[in-house]
Amino acid sequence: NGGRYDGPLGIMLGIDVVEALHRAGRRLPFAVEVVAFGDEEGSRFPASMSCSRAIAGTLDASALEMRDAEGVSVAQALAAFGGDPEGVASAARRPENVLAFLEAHIEQGPVLEAEGLALGVVTAIAAQKRLMVRIAGMAGHAGTTPMGLRKDPGPAAAEAMLALERICRAGTDGLVGTVGRMTALPGAFNVIPGAVEFSMDIRAETSSTRDAAVEAVTAEIHTIAAARGLSATVTLMQALAESPCDPSLMGLLEDSLAALGLPVRRLPSGAGHDAMVMADLCPTAMLFIRCEGGISHNPAEAVTEADCALAARAMLTFIDKLERRERA
Amino acid sequence: NGGRYDGPLGIMLGIDVVEALHRAGRRLPFAVEVVAFGDEEGSRFPASMSCSRAIAGTLDASALEMRDAEGVSVAQALAAFGGDPEGVASAARRPENVLAFLEAHIEQGPVLEAEGLALGVVTAIAAQKRLMVRIAGMAGHAGTTPMGLRKDPGPAAAEAMLALERICRAGTDGLVGTVGRMTALPGAFNVIPGAVEFSMDIRAETSSTRDAAVEAVTAEIHTIAAARGLSATVTLMQALAESPCDPSLMGLLEDSLAALGLPVRRLPSGAGHDAMVMADLCPTAMLFIRCEGGISHNPAEAVTEADCALAARAMLTFIDKLERRERA
Repeated sequence: NGGRYDGPLGIMLGIDVVEALHRAGRRLPFAVEVVAFGDEEGSRFPASMSCSRAIAGTLDASALEMRDAEGVSVAQALAAFGGDPEGVASAARRPENVLAFLEAHIEQGPVLEAEGLALGVVTAIAAQKRLMVRIAGMAGHAGTTPMGLRKDPGPAAAEAMLALERICRAGTDGLVGTVGRMTALPGAFNVIPGAVEFSMDIRAETSSTRDAAVEAVTAEIHTIAAARGLSATVTLMQALAESPCDPSLMGLLEDSLAALGLPVRRLPSGAGHDAMVMADLCPTAMLFIRCEGGISHNPAEAVTEADCALAARAMLTFIDKLERRERA
Repeated sequence: NGGRYDGPLGIMLGIDVVEALHRAGRRLPFAVEVVAFGDEEGSRFPASMSCSRAIAGTLDASALEMRDAEGVSVAQALAAFGGDPEGVASAARRPENVLAFLEAHIEQGPVLEAEGLALGVVTAIAAQKRLMVRIAGMAGHAGTTPMGLRKDPGPAAAEAMLALERICRAGTDGLVGTVGRMTALPGAFNVIPGAVEFSMDIRAETSSTRDAAVEAVTAEIHTIAAARGLSATVTLMQALAESPCDPSLMGLLEDSLAALGLPVRRLPSGAGHDAMVMADLCPTAMLFIRCEGGISHNPAEAVTEADCALAARAMLTFIDKLERRERA
């Protein structure tokens, strides 16, 4: 139930650009590599972008011990897939060997479409925190425990989710908060849960706005749990600071759009991307492509062929300009 | 994380009673069979008590098509276990061949313990409905969709869960309501859910009180969803009417307690039991055994050996009295 362009479109455009360079017999003063990262979303394990973090050299060894819902660790999953958990460290590139990272991606938002633009230049990627909340009470029989004697974490979790929504609605700086996962344990029709767990994904254009929201909702969760005689834990799973794109590369990308006769639109990215991880390794730039209705993470995700062709031309022009800069 | 006495204790007591009859060389004018039902809780499939319903002859053929969380049907699970889905109908007993059904069970509530009593005689089992609620919105990217443009079913589900709690807290006739399961779909950290599903287990001493609560919460769920531009469905998975125990058998059980010098305490059961299904086949009686702190569906579930020994004696005395009645 995801979309078909989030991720794959950037890889296909990379391959298309390399093919065009090859057909034209072009030889450059630098190598152009196309990289397809896995795990950008973090759909299976509680953190994300482990592949780009491995290549950027920022993947902590403890990441291999994270476990999925079935208790399988990243190391076990890698080995079962034929990979080598021991060899992960050797995936890291050295900063002196990498000139630039360019990522093309659908916008996943409604801005470019609303302004009638095919392409946009990303200025920065929003700050993000992923947290897991666990509210624990007392499991019991759904038929024999009177309402007044329950220690049910379910209604407390419901109040906490509504607090997150209220805090984010009242926020500025593009503050958003999402509960993407929720589970009652043990999870039977006729059992008052002993614990409820849910995820929180909180983002804003600045780390300070994001962190203020995280603090406010964490305080509310503890207040809600205490009022019901329950215990609550809020665990930070991942924190990603806002990641500004490289001004020099942004300039080259803006010049490329202008050279194609396109208006230059700068915009921030509310979504996280591998580029924010790669920024620890090398200068980065991101090209956004208009997507229909701003819809993403949904089978209705759509782009036009014409916009993709423009994106490929902008990327080729960017490489031309980078070559000129490097030879100068 | 269940308890070790809910279910198994009644089976062990049945075996113990038959062993005592055998050791004593007793021959009765009726057979005494010990039956261990599976699926009383309905932990895997969305309805429950399928085994006792098969034996009572009230299991609808459609029950074999119910599916678990992985999409496996009851028929497939039965076949994989070495069972014969086609043969389920042949499990049904005929009413003319069954004299009585006696079930011993831990109380799963705090009443007997509070009154210092080892045993109690059940008068009736509470009416119960199991429902599944699905609130559907629009899946989207957790980073790029502003709060005001979301159609997130999560906060609506949270409001619905709090409405269920509020309605049941205000109710009478032992009204209780429980959300034992909750799931956000697709269930990823960084995806606004397209739908949230949760279960509701609603019980009361009478069907009318239970049904009034089901109607009230269903109406609230539709109001909550509509206010947020979402759609909601509330699906009845199972309805069990209150099930009175047989007055004649209750009388024999009360006489048995009195014969052992025990006070006779009558009480209703807030929990469902196979006896309520077996009541469609034959007269039923239930013996409750005191449990520690009223705790059930929890590893802390506990009974004393002395109470269990008393229960076995009461059951043997009940069989004596049933024999006397049948020979009279």
